[in-house]
Amino acid sequence: MTLPQLGDYLATLRAATPLIHCMTNYVAMNSTANVLLATGASPAMLHAPEEVAEFTAISAGLSINIGTISSHWADAMFTATTTADQHSIPWVLDPVAVGATHYRQSLCAKLLTTNPSVIRGNASEILALNGLASQGRGVDSTAASGQAVDAAIALAKQHNCIVAMTGESDWVTDGTQHYRINGGHPLMPQVTTLGCGLSALVTAFVAANRDTPLEATAAALSCFSIAGERAGNSAQGPGSFQVALLDALYQLTPDDLTAHTQWEARRAV
Amino acid sequence: MTLPQLGDYLATLRAATPLIHCMTNYVAMNSTANVLLATGASPAMLHAPEEVAEFTAISAGLSINIGTISSHWADAMFTATTTADQHSIPWVLDPVAVGATHYRQSLCAKLLTTNPSVIRGNASEILALNGLASQGRGVDSTAASGQAVDAAIALAKQHNCIVAMTGESDWVTDGTQHYRINGGHPLMPQVTTLGCGLSALVTAFVAANRDTPLEATAAALSCFSIAGERAGNSAQGPGSFQVALLDALYQLTPDDLTAHTQWEARRAV
Amino acid sequence: MTLPQLGDYLATLRAATPLIHCMTNYVAMNSTANVLLATGASPAMLHAPEEVAEFTAISAGLSINIGTISSHWADAMFTATTTADQHSIPWVLDPVAVGATHYRQSLCAKLLTTNPSVIRGNASEILALNGLASQGRGVDSTAASGQAVDAAIALAKQHNCIVAMTGESDWVTDGTQHYRINGGHPLMPQVTTLGCGLSALVTAFVAANRDTPLEATAAALSCFSIAGERAGNSAQGPGSFQVALLDALYQLTPDDLTAHTQWEARRAV
Repeated sequence: MTLPQLGDYLATLRAATPLIHCMTNYVAMNSTANVLLATGASPAMLHAPEEVAEFTAISAGLSINIGTISSHWADAMFTATTTADQHSIPWVLDPVAVGATHYRQSLCAKLLTTNPSVIRGNASEILALNGLASQGRGVDSTAASGQAVDAAIALAKQHNCIVAMTGESDWVTDGTQHYRINGGHPLMPQVTTLGCGLSALVTAFVAANRDTPLEATAAALSCFSIAGERAGNSAQGPGSFQVALLDALYQLTPDDLTAHTQWEARRAV
Repeated sequence: MTLPQLGDYLATLRAATPLIHCMTNYVAMNSTANVLLATGASPAMLHAPEEVAEFTAISAGLSINIGTISSHWADAMFTATTTADQHSIPWVLDPVAVGATHYRQSLCAKLLTTNPSVIRGNASEILALNGLASQGRGVDSTAASGQAVDAAIALAKQHNCIVAMTGESDWVTDGTQHYRINGGHPLMPQVTTLGCGLSALVTAFVAANRDTPLEATAAALSCFSIAGERAGNSAQGPGSFQVALLDALYQLTPDDLTAHTQWEARRAV
Repeated sequence: MTLPQLGDYLATLRAATPLIHCMTNYVAMNSTANVLLATGASPAMLHAPEEVAEFTAISAGLSINIGTISSHWADAMFTATTTADQHSIPWVLDPVAVGATHYRQSLCAKLLTTNPSVIRGNASEILALNGLASQGRGVDSTAASGQAVDAAIALAKQHNCIVAMTGESDWVTDGTQHYRINGGHPLMPQVTTLGCGLSALVTAFVAANRDTPLEATAAALSCFSIAGERAGNSAQGPGSFQVALLDALYQLTPDDLTAHTQWEARRAV
């Protein structure tokens, strides 16, 4: 069990420049659009109920992030994910802070009924999301890594999707195969909305590589790990890091990605 | 037929620091405010129906961008453009992705009834917007340059306004006189919301130079072309480009603008 | 009467990494989150009426900024400030452009009934806010410094809170003690939303130093003055300034802050 040449997935993305319909939080919109553009995808941000289904249907992928959710957005997101599901358009859920309020929990439970292709979150979010089904209210605190990995696998099996759990190391699983991606930089948590941008980038990779969502997700994670490490090496702080990250994503080549991905296959489940 | 000293329009803008009421999309708000501030105008972003008319009436110009439109915003935009029209305050329409959904088409058709001073879009948007009146549903795909130029001229004549159509080269027309502005840099399409910022900058130039909207629009386009070229020459990618563009707009002098504008008069129509 | 070792307040903030619930304007959300992260606090942006009270109650501080206000947000802000008041959670009001429209004035008057810990604004906003109570409609124009200082003191006494009035020099008062903080850089007004970010940073300092809000507010102002001066010395314009400011906030140490704060006690009132 090995990860294939991940650079191939980046080459495919750049050739396709997939149109990614992003319904994300206000904080992340600009940085997310720039992450997609720098890497080679084509972002579009829109959310009006009057047009959301029409637009999702012509998109290559849909990225949903509940960071600054409100009821109008929640309804439109459900319309969009339902449309994506009906048209077999891949969609990715970023369940921001799902453990923090009951409102987020019930929204995520509803969105999960429309079959996400990938869920991307941190350990607390993955635990909380898994807890929605198995244990009632989600868990807010950072939990031991082992528990969180088990939750990721359970979630992937339950929803028949890929789960990407990011942090110091990133993990990606389809419930059976399971990889760890290393890299990144300690400055990354000091910059806002990097995780949101990564979720959108996962969407772009999966949209451009529809038959291999596990590997495509791993490729997106590895892009951020490699570009993040490079940006961190040249940055003076979180301001210059953010600038350097976009430059590094833009400069990253398929060969680079294949050669520098730091991954481990952890276990067959 | 020649373009006058474009630097004069920048000098007038900086002396006036016009207050520009921006109703723009969430992705573009921060970068748009920074483009206006760097160049010398004074941005204000607000959209509540309770205050929008009161504020438009005290502004020097109004910039309307439908990128992340929803119904509350659409109604408030119409209130604002109606107010601007009644008070003879210049306003600029940026019809983002007007060809993509029916919702955008009907909104733009409504806004066009309130007499924009300038329309700023890319070739697809100009074609789609012109198609609203002449051919039903707009055109999404990038069309041949000649067709798009014809659409720009037709739109300018029909709405008695300036049309600025931007891309690798920029075009500006009042329906009779017609200029091409060259410059810019290939990194520009890799950075989000530059076009949105340019539309707001057009508003500022027109607000500060009310009697000469064609030349004022050309001056705004040329600022972006020159500053974009300079930013591109020093940038490592789209992250550093964005930073360098704001610095270049800030550093641009009126003499610079006059000396380095690359324009051609194309034809009398 | 002297300001204590301001670095101690930064050390406390970094040890606590206080969770700051931000309800701020769309333009400022990203930059505000980055200011908080760079300095050492933990931002969260959310505003849905369904969850806002639940989340404010688990936050260390609440930052309210009315920049792009609309009725749904206004209602949710009042719910949040009421919750903060009931739970004795410090909250900070940034009354953006309160003098510009009647809508802003009535909203601020309502929010002031829920006992802010700190009000942070520029001279025009402080004058307008004080005018709400004492003289009817607020004052828009930049007023003489003396008048504005008197308004700040009156406002602090009336609402039993700290008032921070920022500009070329910053002032902070509890109505009795009164300090001026110098520093900063002329590029600061050329970058959007720096004041908004500063208001959120004041919230973080006050949240982490609850018994000494006057000194905590002064420490936040001084962070911006020192980091702004350093950023300005290395910047080529507003683009690179913004990047350098985040780096400088990140690099600022408690000893630095104590050593380089430029303050004056102005008078006992």
